[in-house]
Amino acid sequence: MTDSNEIKIDLPEQDIKPVDVAFLLAPGYAPVDIIGPYTSLGVLPGVNVHLVWKNTEEVVGVPNFPTRPTTTFDECPQDLDILYAGAVGTEVFEDAETLEFLADRGSRARWVAGSCTGSLLMGAAGLLRGYRATTNFQAVDLLPYFGAEYAPGNVVEDRNRITAGPATGGFEIAFRLIQDIFGDDRAREAILHAEYAPEPLFNVGTPELAGPELTARAQAQTKSMIAPLAEVAGRAAERLGITV
Amino acid sequence: MTDSNEIKIDLPEQDIKPVDVAFLLAPGYAPVDIIGPYTSLGVLPGVNVHLVWKNTEEVVGVPNFPTRPTTTFDECPQDLDILYAGAVGTEVFEDAETLEFLADRGSRARWVAGSCTGSLLMGAAGLLRGYRATTNFQAVDLLPYFGAEYAPGNVVEDRNRITAGPATGGFEIAFRLIQDIFGDDRAREAILHAEYAPEPLFNVGTPELAGPELTARAQAQTKSMIAPLAEVAGRAAERLGITV
Repeated sequence: MTDSNEIKIDLPEQDIKPVDVAFLLAPGYAPVDIIGPYTSLGVLPGVNVHLVWKNTEEVVGVPNFPTRPTTTFDECPQDLDILYAGAVGTEVFEDAETLEFLADRGSRARWVAGSCTGSLLMGAAGLLRGYRATTNFQAVDLLPYFGAEYAPGNVVEDRNRITAGPATGGFEIAFRLIQDIFGDDRAREAILHAEYAPEPLFNVGTPELAGPELTARAQAQTKSMIAPLAEVAGRAAERLGITV
Repeated sequence: MTDSNEIKIDLPEQDIKPVDVAFLLAPGYAPVDIIGPYTSLGVLPGVNVHLVWKNTEEVVGVPNFPTRPTTTFDECPQDLDILYAGAVGTEVFEDAETLEFLADRGSRARWVAGSCTGSLLMGAAGLLRGYRATTNFQAVDLLPYFGAEYAPGNVVEDRNRITAGPATGGFEIAFRLIQDIFGDDRAREAILHAEYAPEPLFNVGTPELAGPELTARAQAQTKSMIAPLAEVAGRAAERLGITV
């Protein structure tokens, strides 16, 4: 069978850069949040994509996606080009070992990236204090509990913090980071390789486009996932000494 | 830690339908092609998403994504609502056991879906003969070798065959199938949950938008992946008795 490690696009030697990207792989992680940037970055020769967790035992993503980490907190490169988190299980937001890892690597990473509630997780590690940021629409009110200020937009950049909503938000973070690290040509090629020219079946992909009725229905459907996060956010504010 | 199997949106009992969806998980598979539909369908209560391969030993996705199948060819439900394949390693296109499994389940599935070269794989299993279909832009010329006729569009439907390009193509297939199986409301909610309102950094996500120079460059970068597929396509045409 194919050696999947070898699936890389062809680039001239002079365009190849050694880049380390670590994606947090935790129980209850949302593969949909990381797979866009994982793929668009990972197929570039020279780019090492790491799936990092405490150990290399299998973790299960949402809703039932068994995945094995490729490296551990201890063995993950110290100086990352990109530290990335998507949504993870609620318990991870208060896991000291995880927060310590994120705070450490995030303090030295060239870019700190979070999509969906992954941006809140970066906040729980103290990495969004004083930064403008976004997350999924159901959770934007929680940003201040982590010391962050909500800003609108598909992708929000503030200095070296870059955040977005769920799913395609990760692709858009990736294109922006490929542009920053590799230049416009690589970003354009990545967009074409992904054929990123979406045509939504219904144009309702934001609360503004969806209108109040559909938005309220969607919020009710995810309330049982967001409510525990609100409790986590309250405790995080206390821990971080933030008054909301 | 969270029991990830329990991550489902809340729906009233009467809106829940038992639905089986099988995603082919093969060596060299592209997680980016299946994660969109896997997630959008999988978070609906009543929907069982299966990751299916010959056995439940770990397979490695592109570029290095270790994933464990959740069921096997033998144990996969016989009558699927959706049989789905994204891109997989080239060798899988000529693996008799895989093609036999796809032909069998595809002959009885309510929908047969393929994104990126996953649509060609369905073709290799004889499931696209006499159908209009699409695939990633680098491979559309190979469709006739599987008896399919290329049709333009982000998503191409012909009777119960539904195909698309890579990456976000899978989301768009999912929204369309959710609409078909569950109705417009569920499709709208799925689009909002995914916040599927993309804003490409550069508007170059199709060859038409990208123009000839960028398209040629992207084609050159993936030539070493597509060339082996062209050989596979030639042999498939012979096996299927198709004259191109």
